Amino acid sequence: MTAAAPPRRLHLNVNAWLQGFVPSAWRVPENDPLGFVDVRHYVRVAQIAEAGKFDAIFLADSVSTDGLATGPVTALEPTLVLTAIAGATTHLGLIGTASTSYNEPYNIARRFASLDLISGGRAGWNIVTTADLSSARNYGHANVLGHAERYRRAAEFTDVVKALWNSWEDDALIGDPHSGRFADPGKLHPVAHQGEFFAAHGILNQPRSRQGHPVLVQAGGSADGQALAARHAEAVFSLSQSLPEAVAYAQGLKQGAQALGRQQGSLLVFPGLGTFIGGTEAEARHRHQELIALVPIEHSLRRLAGRLGVAPERLDLDKPLPQDLPLPNHGNGGHTFFKGILARSRQHGLTLRQFLGEFAAGGGHREIVGTPEQVADDIEHWFKAGAADGFNLMPGLLPSGLQDFVEQVVPILQKRGLFRTDYEGSTLREHLGLARPGRAATRVP
Amino acid sequence: MTAAAPPRRLHLNVNAWLQGFVPSAWRVPENDPLGFVDVRHYVRVAQIAEAGKFDAIFLADSVSTDGLATGPVTALEPTLVLTAIAGATTHLGLIGTASTSYNEPYNIARRFASLDLISGGRAGWNIVTTADLSSARNYGHANVLGHAERYRRAAEFTDVVKALWNSWEDDALIGDPHSGRFADPGKLHPVAHQGEFFAAHGILNQPRSRQGHPVLVQAGGSADGQALAARHAEAVFSLSQSLPEAVAYAQGLKQGAQALGRQQGSLLVFPGLGTFIGGTEAEARHRHQELIALVPIEHSLRRLAGRLGVAPERLDLDKPLPQDLPLPNHGNGGHTFFKGILARSRQHGLTLRQFLGEFAAGGGHREIVGTPEQVADDIEHWFKAGAADGFNLMPGLLPSGLQDFVEQVVPILQKRGLFRTDYEGSTLREHLGLARPGRAATRVP
Repeated sequence: MTAAAPPRRLHLNVNAWLQGFVPSAWRVPENDPLGFVDVRHYVRVAQIAEAGKFDAIFLADSVSTDGLATGPVTALEPTLVLTAIAGATTHLGLIGTASTSYNEPYNIARRFASLDLISGGRAGWNIVTTADLSSARNYGHANVLGHAERYRRAAEFTDVVKALWNSWEDDALIGDPHSGRFADPGKLHPVAHQGEFFAAHGILNQPRSRQGHPVLVQAGGSADGQALAARHAEAVFSLSQSLPEAVAYAQGLKQGAQALGRQQGSLLVFPGLGTFIGGTEAEARHRHQELIALVPIEHSLRRLAGRLGVAPERLDLDKPLPQDLPLPNHGNGGHTFFKGILARSRQHGLTLRQFLGEFAAGGGHREIVGTPEQVADDIEHWFKAGAADGFNLMPGLLPSGLQDFVEQVVPILQKRGLFRTDYEGSTLREHLGLARPGRAATRVP
Repeated sequence: MTAAAPPRRLHLNVNAWLQGFVPSAWRVPENDPLGFVDVRHYVRVAQIAEAGKFDAIFLADSVSTDGLATGPVTALEPTLVLTAIAGATTHLGLIGTASTSYNEPYNIARRFASLDLISGGRAGWNIVTTADLSSARNYGHANVLGHAERYRRAAEFTDVVKALWNSWEDDALIGDPHSGRFADPGKLHPVAHQGEFFAAHGILNQPRSRQGHPVLVQAGGSADGQALAARHAEAVFSLSQSLPEAVAYAQGLKQGAQALGRQQGSLLVFPGLGTFIGGTEAEARHRHQELIALVPIEHSLRRLAGRLGVAPERLDLDKPLPQDLPLPNHGNGGHTFFKGILARSRQHGLTLRQFLGEFAAGGGHREIVGTPEQVADDIEHWFKAGAADGFNLMPGLLPSGLQDFVEQVVPILQKRGLFRTDYEGSTLREHLGLARPGRAATRVP
């Protein structure tokens, strides 16, 4: 007798970006205009997500302050916000972004391992590289690292982080008060790494967590980004505008992972999905339009131009977006958003001025504006078609848009048997159905 | 009419090192042997300190894992632990250690600024340099930076951090939902730094906190360390074995600060003070000896030899500690502990074996083992003599030793009018009586 394969399970994360993905979210009466630096806001979002039995909260990160004159920017450091959330929740996964470009592997390994211990095994690290010049300049660099070099650095960085996380066997810690033996030196395995970008010798200063080590998440969509994901990522936050493209992307990524010898099911794909919910589609669209109208067109234009890597004054507001733009940063980074934006503008066939409204909320990601049933239908459709193992949800307003989703969409997904009605495990790996990594599962090559 | 100078106020911090400063603290029945990685332990210590109206909790830091076979090491990252504490307390100051040797100024500026915002203005940064080889090797360095170079780097690092903290004027953030104006670009002042070790261009991605920016704390006792303190530190954690030496040290440091044009009262000195309290002195000594006897002599010997920079096998357990040892690390770091240990061993005139018991608990700091009255008398004596503005308390056991202090010593100090009976402010600067820094108070030279 062969056991039937367990049913696939839908996963839901909330991308808790500031007060929502509509850039005017800070201006709505229900929100504190300066709430972007109030940790209680993020804790509240997390508690709503946990009430909705979400897999995780996700925090993006950036050190760019472009656009600050007309709206908030990413501010509080993600691992600190997630630590605050850990103390106010019991099950929710905690995924934070940290760049491999301007950090030391030991420091990142350590901080996420601490978050993992503090939260009882709920941490995830979203591996990104940093491609924008204004961020580079904060760290004293006159130029951004080239694309290939940046990704080679990211891959080696991640190798070192994993080796540090695996430098303790699960039972290396003894803590026997009677004999006085505290740790078993035979179960500690110092990293001995000498590479292109980094050297590291020694063990991490913390034992492994309940889930072994943090879940590895990745978000780059370029060829280099996909190669990094195939090698290291256990979850990928992707950007897909159409279902066929999303299916192809997910299949390609999973085949890439399996070609490297990884198990089926060891890599999950979560497209970003903007949501804006109303009692009727018309009501949702009307409210959405009201909020978009509050976004200064210069704000959206500068943000779009930044994503595309062109000067804002080179774009004509009354014509469709040109489709023959060169890759941004001389091909060095931002490929995913660039392609997503062009694809989306083609789909809609709008003038740039009209398109900026569309663009404003999702920032390049797909967005559904409609009823709870419409949102649930879309999610089910993509999930069953193999375009997604779940979604990184991007509500237009936070916390209210998430509250709407949890109260109105989650019950539909539960009724359809797609989504859990309660947590069955306590760690992020258990929520995601990912195996606990063995100590020897990864090693620096 | 001249207003009378306000009375000096005593300040108390708890140095929450693992489960206490007696190295066998993890082995006592009241403690969880593996509690060193349980964040709830540190939260509990903080809550007791807050009940005792302490100024702050202090977390040391290290990435060395030497001695792990026989006892715990520093593990959880301090800014994360302090964030967890922020959520479980309302007034207590939160001082964390971070090294200038293996970090980027932007990342440290940002993380402590986040902690400061999250905690409502209660953060402090303890600036250290890292001198040991095993830490250096974690970051791929085959050697430790030389002493002078390490301190030049620390000074420049701190310049950049302060410049980033001061890159926003207090009222740069507008957040007006009606006009859509979010920040005033005229009140943002990008850092433009090009120095020996770092370059930095841009503003921090967060506004200033309720207390302006985190309090700067410093702990190095070498000439270079004292120069750094005179320039930057608002509080210094010092090591002094005798009262005359402590008075001279505090006076020298304060004169150094004033010679640089700093205000009187803008630099506070807090010597480390080990405490072990019993109903009678004999009872306290007996219990203390019992705990010391549980520390393997090899553990203490290796720790002492490490502080002194000699091979353990070169030390004779049955003779007094030689007084003619060379400075450790070829004069490169650890001066403070080195001198403190030699001074203390001279004072006691014991064999090394006997001295190791003395050394075990305080790790080189002064320690009082006795009754609550004796501890209070000592604190009052040092405070009134100008040897200390307060103390960085190092209880032998945590949390119980702190609980004893709060229940038995704090009421005596309050009765004598030396210590607050309630918080009068809400920020760490208010507790310490330090001025809120103006935006232009510091600039990169």
